[in-house]
Amino acid sequence: MDEWRTAIVRSEESAIWIHGHDVTALMRQATFADTVFLLHRGRLPDERERKLIDAILTSVSDHGPGAPSCATARLVASGNRQSISAAIAAGILAIGDEHGGAGEHCIAMIANGILDAQGRSIPIEAGAAAVVERAIAKGERIPGLGHRVHRTVDPRVEVLFSLARGGNEEGAGVRFMRAIHAEACQRIRPLPINIDGGLAAVLYDLGFPPEAGKFIFIIGRVAGLTAEVAEEYAREKPMRVRIPVQYDGKAPR
Amino acid sequence: MDEWRTAIVRSEESAIWIHGHDVTALMRQATFADTVFLLHRGRLPDERERKLIDAILTSVSDHGPGAPSCATARLVASGNRQSISAAIAAGILAIGDEHGGAGEHCIAMIANGILDAQGRSIPIEAGAAAVVERAIAKGERIPGLGHRVHRTVDPRVEVLFSLARGGNEEGAGVRFMRAIHAEACQRIRPLPINIDGGLAAVLYDLGFPPEAGKFIFIIGRVAGLTAEVAEEYAREKPMRVRIPVQYDGKAPR
Amino acid sequence: MDEWRTAIVRSEESAIWIHGHDVTALMRQATFADTVFLLHRGRLPDERERKLIDAILTSVSDHGPGAPSCATARLVASGNRQSISAAIAAGILAIGDEHGGAGEHCIAMIANGILDAQGRSIPIEAGAAAVVERAIAKGERIPGLGHRVHRTVDPRVEVLFSLARGGNEEGAGVRFMRAIHAEACQRIRPLPINIDGGLAAVLYDLGFPPEAGKFIFIIGRVAGLTAEVAEEYAREKPMRVRIPVQYDGKAPR
Amino acid sequence: MDEWRTAIVRSEESAIWIHGHDVTALMRQATFADTVFLLHRGRLPDERERKLIDAILTSVSDHGPGAPSCATARLVASGNRQSISAAIAAGILAIGDEHGGAGEHCIAMIANGILDAQGRSIPIEAGAAAVVERAIAKGERIPGLGHRVHRTVDPRVEVLFSLARGGNEEGAGVRFMRAIHAEACQRIRPLPINIDGGLAAVLYDLGFPPEAGKFIFIIGRVAGLTAEVAEEYAREKPMRVRIPVQYDGKAPR
Repeated sequence: MDEWRTAIVRSEESAIWIHGHDVTALMRQATFADTVFLLHRGRLPDERERKLIDAILTSVSDHGPGAPSCATARLVASGNRQSISAAIAAGILAIGDEHGGAGEHCIAMIANGILDAQGRSIPIEAGAAAVVERAIAKGERIPGLGHRVHRTVDPRVEVLFSLARGGNEEGAGVRFMRAIHAEACQRIRPLPINIDGGLAAVLYDLGFPPEAGKFIFIIGRVAGLTAEVAEEYAREKPMRVRIPVQYDGKAPR
Repeated sequence: MDEWRTAIVRSEESAIWIHGHDVTALMRQATFADTVFLLHRGRLPDERERKLIDAILTSVSDHGPGAPSCATARLVASGNRQSISAAIAAGILAIGDEHGGAGEHCIAMIANGILDAQGRSIPIEAGAAAVVERAIAKGERIPGLGHRVHRTVDPRVEVLFSLARGGNEEGAGVRFMRAIHAEACQRIRPLPINIDGGLAAVLYDLGFPPEAGKFIFIIGRVAGLTAEVAEEYAREKPMRVRIPVQYDGKAPR
Repeated sequence: MDEWRTAIVRSEESAIWIHGHDVTALMRQATFADTVFLLHRGRLPDERERKLIDAILTSVSDHGPGAPSCATARLVASGNRQSISAAIAAGILAIGDEHGGAGEHCIAMIANGILDAQGRSIPIEAGAAAVVERAIAKGERIPGLGHRVHRTVDPRVEVLFSLARGGNEEGAGVRFMRAIHAEACQRIRPLPINIDGGLAAVLYDLGFPPEAGKFIFIIGRVAGLTAEVAEEYAREKPMRVRIPVQYDGKAPR
Repeated sequence: MDEWRTAIVRSEESAIWIHGHDVTALMRQATFADTVFLLHRGRLPDERERKLIDAILTSVSDHGPGAPSCATARLVASGNRQSISAAIAAGILAIGDEHGGAGEHCIAMIANGILDAQGRSIPIEAGAAAVVERAIAKGERIPGLGHRVHRTVDPRVEVLFSLARGGNEEGAGVRFMRAIHAEACQRIRPLPINIDGGLAAVLYDLGFPPEAGKFIFIIGRVAGLTAEVAEEYAREKPMRVRIPVQYDGKAPR
């Protein structure tokens, strides 16, 4: 077999480096948010960048057992108690474009929208309006808006935006997302920016590519999944979940 | 269906709490390591505890594409590029007692060994010797010892133990693991304490139960898996992996 | 990397063989149950063996969306519609000792019980009574008994046993399982042999090892999982599942 | 929680029905291929339909440990021996558009191509030529063509097509796929129809929708995955796989 190439980790008998940083030095001086940033960007973050990674990871870490990812992990823990990995992995599998993964498309929407606005020399707000216009015309959902629990405001988003701002003005990504939101509220109906939209805007301003929307969500959520599975083991009996089923197919022959 | 009970997350229209802490407050003031600790222990860590969680998560975050978890994630990314979740989840599934999961059994070994020594009023060192004796008699592997890359010393372990010590003396878990190691080196052969053994000793001293050995490893490793999958997408073609196969079964009929 | 050895499949540019059988010949002459048997046993089954594999696979193929495996697959399809594989894989992860996997332990119980009875030259029935006695003493569940839907009789079991019998007398595995059942009904409480117990007895008599209990269950259940996921895609909106959650932890600070 | 609706399985205390067929009757009279067809189509297949389902399931059941799905299952079995489900599930996760899943897009290509030809009242062959033309213009791969092992002919395809034909003429799907193949060989380069393309053409002619390309592949492949995992457990030590890694990133600092 060919060798597998990597530019991330170098591992030898007596040392391991991540993007050139000795792991033992990172253990002494860095936080886990530093490591996450380093793994994806090839350099350590500055103070503000680290703070934002921490805030994003915490913001999506857990939303309770009603979220599909947590419910899935608990269901698997209910039928299969031999493998912690199985329960956590199943929870991650529930993360897709419809749950927790909208950030990916949202970063792409922001990136394309800003590029398009720049190309046409129009303000970001006009670019955002065009995006909303197209979505309405095509009957498509706009990623990053709406939440089934937080129906008017997702409380995590404004905190994230304020941390991102620091003392300075807002980045292009946040401004674009705000413009999308304003336009959608007017043209469609009042909907909050959800945490996927919030982290997408901030990750865009931090220079992350679209896939980071899913990667970072998954890292954060895994923390919650482990706690949910631990609680399921501690409090609940195996096979406790009973889904009520209604059959509406063919009658018995 | 019955309601699903939880004592971890409370989620309402305008707020989310983790063990009573408002998530927006955590986003402003806490790090992700704080959140991980809070999720599992129901309280925020002190400075030293946070530092140790950060160090452990970083220490296991990535060991390169040769590790089964990373290799699995990359193989899945090679055949299935429609779902980031699928690749990450598959990587997690490779984590078991044989890879990355020895920490769980190691914490149990430490906890039982210390309990046993206390019950018999013998020193920790004598308790550890008894554990090694039993493992030799049964022909069983001792969890937390040996590493296929770091054959003499796992460089991460001593760093972790020094961070755990702070200015004080070592905890019972670290002392027990050191005694296991010394005894095994003498009775079996020179083998390093590996990172599973290192984090097990420290997590025991921090008050974590055995399963935390797997939970914490998984949280840390997921960060590396996301970076490995991102690199696979960026650098490699689909279906690039070629496993050389040798058939040694029945001849064609 | 070392070559990966296998005695199952030989694959060349112009032909593929499974245990020496040309796959194209199998496609013409064999059924899928034949292939399943061949893959695991290295030879094709006879008529009665094939019939039993077919019956077992059909018997466990689907039990509706209330079963943890199907519910998990549907939950994942609800949050992640990008990957059919993700939903099916998650469904499989819910299969463990507590759901669908009891067959493995049941075959081991039968194999050990019969071996023990033979070693002590006692009748199978006395061996089974000893197993039940031990389970009661240890407070352990006996695998293969009881079902949360089929509370008095699992209708699939007697059909399977009658197919296994053919015109002949029952095999040792079925007789042992019947003896376990009779003893447990008397000593514990009336409980049916469930399908895990049924297929375990029959697979034991067919010469399969314990793990086959899980392997065969998984092959059968995957058929149902694909249909359940297809129905979820066709009939239900993403994120439709709402789990009712009750928080009983710390009050907000 | 709302009830989960289903038209597939009705399950009561004393009976289970699949699309109105009593499962115990199916166990007596049907094969597993019948059950697979019934689950997806709501009726039992005729003789020829059953034969084709059997042939397709067998054709994709296993291609040896070099295939990404099998290699993934074995890697997971190497690191995590606590859960058979984990290894099988990981193998399934490797199935995507790039491995084993091309059938889905291929059925869609055939269905759209035939619809388009009918709408424009042109022969199927002209419709196929237009599809190839478009793929060349866009630089896109045509699904169902080419195989990394079977470089000139995939031996399974012609057998499948001959079984599909029976005594009659070929169905529109097979003729369309043959036309795609002929055109691609002339316009691009000689490439075989692979098994994904073969099963796609036949499933289209049997009336299956595009997703069936993945569903049926997964059902067949799971049989092989279980055998590969059984062999890994029986023949190989945990952690046996060594992936050779080449680091080409930043130098240690």
